[in-house]
Amino acid sequence: MSEFDLINSLREIICARPGDEAAQSVVGIGDDGAVLSVPSGRELVVCTDTLVAGVHFPLPTRPDAIGYKALAVNLSDLAAMGAQPAWFFMALTLPFDNPDWIESFAGGMAKLASDAAVELAGGDVTSGPLSITVTALGLVAKGQSLLRSTAVAGDLVVVSGRPGAAAYALKRLQEGSQPGTADLAALNFPVPRLALGRMLPGLATACIDISDGLAADLGHILEQSGVGAVIDLDTLPCPDSLRSMAGSERWPLQLAGGDDYELCFTVPAGSKTELMELSVAAGVELTIIGEITPGREMEFKTADGKSYRPAMAGYRHFENPGNGEK
Amino acid sequence: MSEFDLINSLREIICARPGDEAAQSVVGIGDDGAVLSVPSGRELVVCTDTLVAGVHFPLPTRPDAIGYKALAVNLSDLAAMGAQPAWFFMALTLPFDNPDWIESFAGGMAKLASDAAVELAGGDVTSGPLSITVTALGLVAKGQSLLRSTAVAGDLVVVSGRPGAAAYALKRLQEGSQPGTADLAALNFPVPRLALGRMLPGLATACIDISDGLAADLGHILEQSGVGAVIDLDTLPCPDSLRSMAGSERWPLQLAGGDDYELCFTVPAGSKTELMELSVAAGVELTIIGEITPGREMEFKTADGKSYRPAMAGYRHFENPGNGEK
Repeated sequence: MSEFDLINSLREIICARPGDEAAQSVVGIGDDGAVLSVPSGRELVVCTDTLVAGVHFPLPTRPDAIGYKALAVNLSDLAAMGAQPAWFFMALTLPFDNPDWIESFAGGMAKLASDAAVELAGGDVTSGPLSITVTALGLVAKGQSLLRSTAVAGDLVVVSGRPGAAAYALKRLQEGSQPGTADLAALNFPVPRLALGRMLPGLATACIDISDGLAADLGHILEQSGVGAVIDLDTLPCPDSLRSMAGSERWPLQLAGGDDYELCFTVPAGSKTELMELSVAAGVELTIIGEITPGREMEFKTADGKSYRPAMAGYRHFENPGNGEK
Repeated sequence: MSEFDLINSLREIICARPGDEAAQSVVGIGDDGAVLSVPSGRELVVCTDTLVAGVHFPLPTRPDAIGYKALAVNLSDLAAMGAQPAWFFMALTLPFDNPDWIESFAGGMAKLASDAAVELAGGDVTSGPLSITVTALGLVAKGQSLLRSTAVAGDLVVVSGRPGAAAYALKRLQEGSQPGTADLAALNFPVPRLALGRMLPGLATACIDISDGLAADLGHILEQSGVGAVIDLDTLPCPDSLRSMAGSERWPLQLAGGDDYELCFTVPAGSKTELMELSVAAGVELTIIGEITPGREMEFKTADGKSYRPAMAGYRHFENPGNGEK
């Protein structure tokens, strides 16, 4: 299959268009670059993330999950900025020329592109060790993007969904045992919190998506906002499969496991009613897990006074190559 | 070196800002995504290209050349669209943690980013086999981007510079001999034709950059415009190092070698004066090498009636992995 046949095949399978009709691709795939029209009053949000085989996913991962996830991790970043996805670009490096693999890969990506109404507007296909870099472009009303640097003391710390399932699935795979269906879906087909992200501007004071683990990612908010936090470990929302575990077994998965793609955000104290309404409107479980403090410390405590310090695995990709974490 | 130290190091070294003051990054590196403000009346041009070690460049290539070229190949695509570069994003996958290598790599990229006035607005650093994906964003006046699909019969075919030097340098490296200085510079530090590209809207009818070889890339214009071309081999502008070669030795390098990053474009018949003025204004040699024809054939002929059919290596990345060509 030539590069051009391959690109045409991808283009045919991944054919979603932007949900926002004002976001037009004037020229899509097939020229030296895409030409895009950004509606007035909107700012562009751009993020890029790479998945490398054997580093970010185990080598035998099913191809539709790889295609889905390469897009999902980027849409999750757009959600964390409060942006609506419009377009994406994919640089695909493949070690083989396997039409079945490519069709499955593209099918997984197409499913999410269609759900999220985001257009594949260009890319590059090269031969080499398997890796996928997606660059996603979204739109947000001018001045409304959600940052990491704007949390203030007294804010409530909120998490969407139930972190920990993806890390538990990965742990079981690494141990050679079969994860439960829900946990494996959390690992392979994480749902970017796009509806929630779009509804957060105006309420959230700061936001991040949880790719490196709740503790590491909350840590970015604290560091960039110059604040601290106290997290109540008893309130951490727990996936069913982790419910019977002791805290010492469960907390590392929930706080340092990563690959959750939930949103962690802060809201002003006194926003509990708005949070409940938001949870219903976005169709996502939202849990207050702690509070922003004026200090610089991040503390994890239980009601009976136990404290816990998670390993910050997410900070150290470079020293842990091949561990399957992102 | 942690991912964060590495990103900070790259950010410190690569610190250029957009030349167009209306093109603002509201939020740059350090959040889930960058927030960019696209000036009104302008369209966004986006392109992405990956360089893989051992595929697009020989493994022992100096790191500053790799950093330079990863950006250059993308800026060349922006030039071919008539766009002015504003921002770029870099996904860097590294198999090692070598501060000297990284500093040299970033230095090469910083030099070009500064020359081209383009801002590194975000990226991702992962561990894995060496590869670099750059996504570059440029701006063009609404409706003014240069396409491949708009050449018409009777147009003149023009090429900038003197294609062939990069391919000759690569050939010598592959043979184990030392290329000349100018040829090696053409391979390692190609100059994207940004000034020329920005001056082409209004004159050029179609444009492409020569990454896969003049014949293959002109072929894209012909295919997408539904036309043919006759190229006069005697007019091909020749790098000094190729001047003493017979045509049969020189033409494959000039027409199918690739990695030139010159622009090939078409202009209406009767634009010779405008072309001469443009050559002076952009500071680039421009040569008329042939004419667009109503048929679908691409013919290469000499004045004394010889014809030549170049191999289209550029069309077949996938069947020639590891050949060092792009």
